[in-house]
Amino acid sequence: MTHEELFFQITHKKSYLCVGLDTDIRKIPEHLLNEEDPVFAFNKAIIDATSDYCVAYKPNLAFYEAQGVAGWESLRKTLAYIPKTHFTIADAKRGDIGNTSGLYARTFFDPAASGLDFDSVTVAPYMGSDSVLPFLDYSNKWVILLALTSNTGGSDFQRLVVDDKPLYEHVLTTSQQWAGPDRMMYVVGATQADALSHIRTLVPNHFLLVPGVGAQGGSLEEVSRYGMNARCGLLVNSSRGILYAGNGQDFAQKARVEAHAIQQEMEKYLELYLK
Amino acid sequence: MTHEELFFQITHKKSYLCVGLDTDIRKIPEHLLNEEDPVFAFNKAIIDATSDYCVAYKPNLAFYEAQGVAGWESLRKTLAYIPKTHFTIADAKRGDIGNTSGLYARTFFDPAASGLDFDSVTVAPYMGSDSVLPFLDYSNKWVILLALTSNTGGSDFQRLVVDDKPLYEHVLTTSQQWAGPDRMMYVVGATQADALSHIRTLVPNHFLLVPGVGAQGGSLEEVSRYGMNARCGLLVNSSRGILYAGNGQDFAQKARVEAHAIQQEMEKYLELYLK
Repeated sequence: MTHEELFFQITHKKSYLCVGLDTDIRKIPEHLLNEEDPVFAFNKAIIDATSDYCVAYKPNLAFYEAQGVAGWESLRKTLAYIPKTHFTIADAKRGDIGNTSGLYARTFFDPAASGLDFDSVTVAPYMGSDSVLPFLDYSNKWVILLALTSNTGGSDFQRLVVDDKPLYEHVLTTSQQWAGPDRMMYVVGATQADALSHIRTLVPNHFLLVPGVGAQGGSLEEVSRYGMNARCGLLVNSSRGILYAGNGQDFAQKARVEAHAIQQEMEKYLELYLK
Repeated sequence: MTHEELFFQITHKKSYLCVGLDTDIRKIPEHLLNEEDPVFAFNKAIIDATSDYCVAYKPNLAFYEAQGVAGWESLRKTLAYIPKTHFTIADAKRGDIGNTSGLYARTFFDPAASGLDFDSVTVAPYMGSDSVLPFLDYSNKWVILLALTSNTGGSDFQRLVVDDKPLYEHVLTTSQQWAGPDRMMYVVGATQADALSHIRTLVPNHFLLVPGVGAQGGSLEEVSRYGMNARCGLLVNSSRGILYAGNGQDFAQKARVEAHAIQQEMEKYLELYLK
């Protein structure tokens, strides 16, 4: 999916919501456990219930891998079920030396090899350029690079100061030599709203993938105020708040209500802050 | 496996060789492609041929994931086949916020969930403490943290200077607050031999996992001279040099010859440099 197409979906849906498919088999409603593939059954219902109100889905790989072979199969079916109108993110935080990153790129971008055909993958920057570039060999596919994350440990290294600037700023500036805003996005945690307006000056045209709204305590209003650009430039993720809005037979309906509420709030912010 | 047991294996085998199972289905001998699971058939033959001369095996996850569900199954069978006397490393370069890292820990350390029961997993440090700690909740399991990697992009961020010290030194010192040398190792590329003696002063008792000897150009002699400590403290990895030593019916025999040659060299260095 191109930058253009993604922005079209955002204006069409009046939403920049990404639904994080962090599907934990220990948390899904009990009645689904009788299904042949409970994780897929849950995801299918969530996708049906929320696709009107979101523009992206982000399966978190850890939740699938923790189920081994069966989890990998649930992931494949889930991805195939997501409508083509929605941007898909493999939240995998990968990154290794060049030839290995090339294989991770095959994993997420080459359905003939792996059965998966994501639009994008999250990548950790620690290993530098040649750990990122192999993902960019696939046309129309995106790298979403970790910049400033929403967890407490994010400060351990990301905010260390190098030449008067925190490390994450070096990640933002150096990585712009590898790809432009048509192929790269950045992860910036919603709990870091104080840093968002400054980050916008460094990457004015890039999309930011913003986790941390909801369960992790970030404010959607602040993220939208400080982070939005002329093409929206935001994908704000919610996982647990939507997935586990209900725990009974009506879990999908409750997820829909929650996703709709976020979309309504986003519609308001698009009117206020789209520059 | 404990630090003690690993050192016992090293002295018993007179080897600190780790065989990297970077098994690429596009590179294995043609006659294996008729097997039901060619990747597992290849790994099985390599393990049979090399287990006398190495103390560890390190499947590189990317190579298995690139095959999707089938690759994950090959990985499970390969891990189950590795003798219990050998230390096993999931070379996965994972790392995410706490609850997600907890699921990655389940993936590699909880066979009841995923079918996998590795001794250790490689972890990227960018997301800090709470991305690493969940792996340490499993007793007798290890985190192998990226410090200074062997690839060219490794310099992009790892050598940036923070308070007169390169970033990787901060990773080495900060992470020692999370676990001691009985639970944590570090990845230090063999192409960084100049930095090894200094790194030894910072982490005198830790094991270092050293990739980059062979195809990537690192010198085993230098790594051993600068990196060895009183309990060896080194696991030196070779992947392609062993796996693809031959490409015919006798590929495993050729792999054995190559592994034996490295073991012989290591035996010499253990006599010279074990302090």
